[in-house]
Amino acid sequence: MVDAGRHHDTCCYVRVVPGLSIFGVPGLPEIEPGTDLAPAIVAAAAADGMPLVDGDVVVVTSKIVSKAEGRTVEIGDVEPSPFALAWSAMWDKDPAVTEIVLREAKRVVRQLGPVLITETKHGFVCANSGVDQSSSGAHGRLVLLPLDSDVSARGIRAGFAELGIDAAVIVSDTFGRAWREGQTDIAIGVAGIAPIYSYIGQVDPHGHEFRVQAICTADELAGAAELVKGNTSRVPVAVIRGFEWQRDETVSIAPVLRDQSRDMFR
Amino acid sequence: MVDAGRHHDTCCYVRVVPGLSIFGVPGLPEIEPGTDLAPAIVAAAAADGMPLVDGDVVVVTSKIVSKAEGRTVEIGDVEPSPFALAWSAMWDKDPAVTEIVLREAKRVVRQLGPVLITETKHGFVCANSGVDQSSSGAHGRLVLLPLDSDVSARGIRAGFAELGIDAAVIVSDTFGRAWREGQTDIAIGVAGIAPIYSYIGQVDPHGHEFRVQAICTADELAGAAELVKGNTSRVPVAVIRGFEWQRDETVSIAPVLRDQSRDMFR
Repeated sequence: MVDAGRHHDTCCYVRVVPGLSIFGVPGLPEIEPGTDLAPAIVAAAAADGMPLVDGDVVVVTSKIVSKAEGRTVEIGDVEPSPFALAWSAMWDKDPAVTEIVLREAKRVVRQLGPVLITETKHGFVCANSGVDQSSSGAHGRLVLLPLDSDVSARGIRAGFAELGIDAAVIVSDTFGRAWREGQTDIAIGVAGIAPIYSYIGQVDPHGHEFRVQAICTADELAGAAELVKGNTSRVPVAVIRGFEWQRDETVSIAPVLRDQSRDMFR
Repeated sequence: MVDAGRHHDTCCYVRVVPGLSIFGVPGLPEIEPGTDLAPAIVAAAAADGMPLVDGDVVVVTSKIVSKAEGRTVEIGDVEPSPFALAWSAMWDKDPAVTEIVLREAKRVVRQLGPVLITETKHGFVCANSGVDQSSSGAHGRLVLLPLDSDVSARGIRAGFAELGIDAAVIVSDTFGRAWREGQTDIAIGVAGIAPIYSYIGQVDPHGHEFRVQAICTADELAGAAELVKGNTSRVPVAVIRGFEWQRDETVSIAPVLRDQSRDMFR
């Protein structure tokens, strides 16, 4: 197995690997409300010896975005509704958590047994409206999804630009899927980089025109980033270097959200 | 932006990048029934100057696996059923294709307008039973999913082992998802590497125990591989280097396939 060599004593040279490289950005400070993420990420990457460069795709876990934006709720401050109280009692859940999940939802998609799948106000279909109670940094605090992850991503990309770095930004979260066990990281906000790459109209090596294929590269990039973020050290930011993308300041995650009229599974 | 430098005239040295590197394996020959994929991949990687090494995760597009295994059907040889004929006529589809899609299915999950979502005999829920008519290498030929992609992956891993290389293998395909537009590459067969990594029982940096999180790393690896495979050159094999995995010869994709009794969207 190749030695990744992050902490080699001697400087380590190898033939450049074509394709992509993906690495985590360790050493970020604890994120507080008001933390300016872009300079914190730039500083941490530089301190780790891997400074950001133009063309990088920086994948930022939504949890630190939410913390920086103050999107947290103290459980003790929440007054559950009668509906939240009754359902939570049936399934041994914290009614305050259920209450916040419902407040974050546009509607309930499935509520079966202890499982609550909602459509968030953004239009994401996920468990518990993306509300995170597992590792919020303090007992009794919930971390909600950013109000608008595209705006969050644009802010971080703009922060990089102020520091002279032209990097795309993807805000990611960990979602479950229909039909398949195990969660994957997917994109909930983008800046600079379009979330979907379409082959439609292009021609394959055998001369056939692609008729339907469009790839959600933003989700693949978010998942790829999880592979280096997702260990017990829980590094919240990863960099993907070498991926070619077209600068576009008009992008949003909206094209990824299937309209309900086109969705056979909602 | 970093120059990936695959075809530099001068040999190019850079500081080793910690984390993962992902690169395609170009230059494979046209795959025919009976092609032995493992030596073909090893030779192509070596010829490209990036020989496989122990610990690599090799992601192989199912289409070349199917071609090597002879899992193709000539459209002219297919006699459509009355059901396939009637539905295909309604939606301007080729009834022979519909017939093969139905034969590959365990059951139809959704059939709305021109869309046909099935559960394959393997248990995958996907459009058109994963039958590919877009780029089969010859007009009028359909490429079906491998009969058992775990067996296919194990065969390729064994072939690498015979050549002295201890590499994990993931067979991938491009599937759509519920709720989200754009397809992503996911795993349909694995060898050597477990498809799901569970955090359940582990403790986060704040002392909270993970209660529900299990990550489908195989799908994230397959998606990451698509990022280097998925351009118009359509390189069918990619290598992920630097990902740590536990050797396990008992793995299969089965744990990823949600049982229908647990599935709220089928």
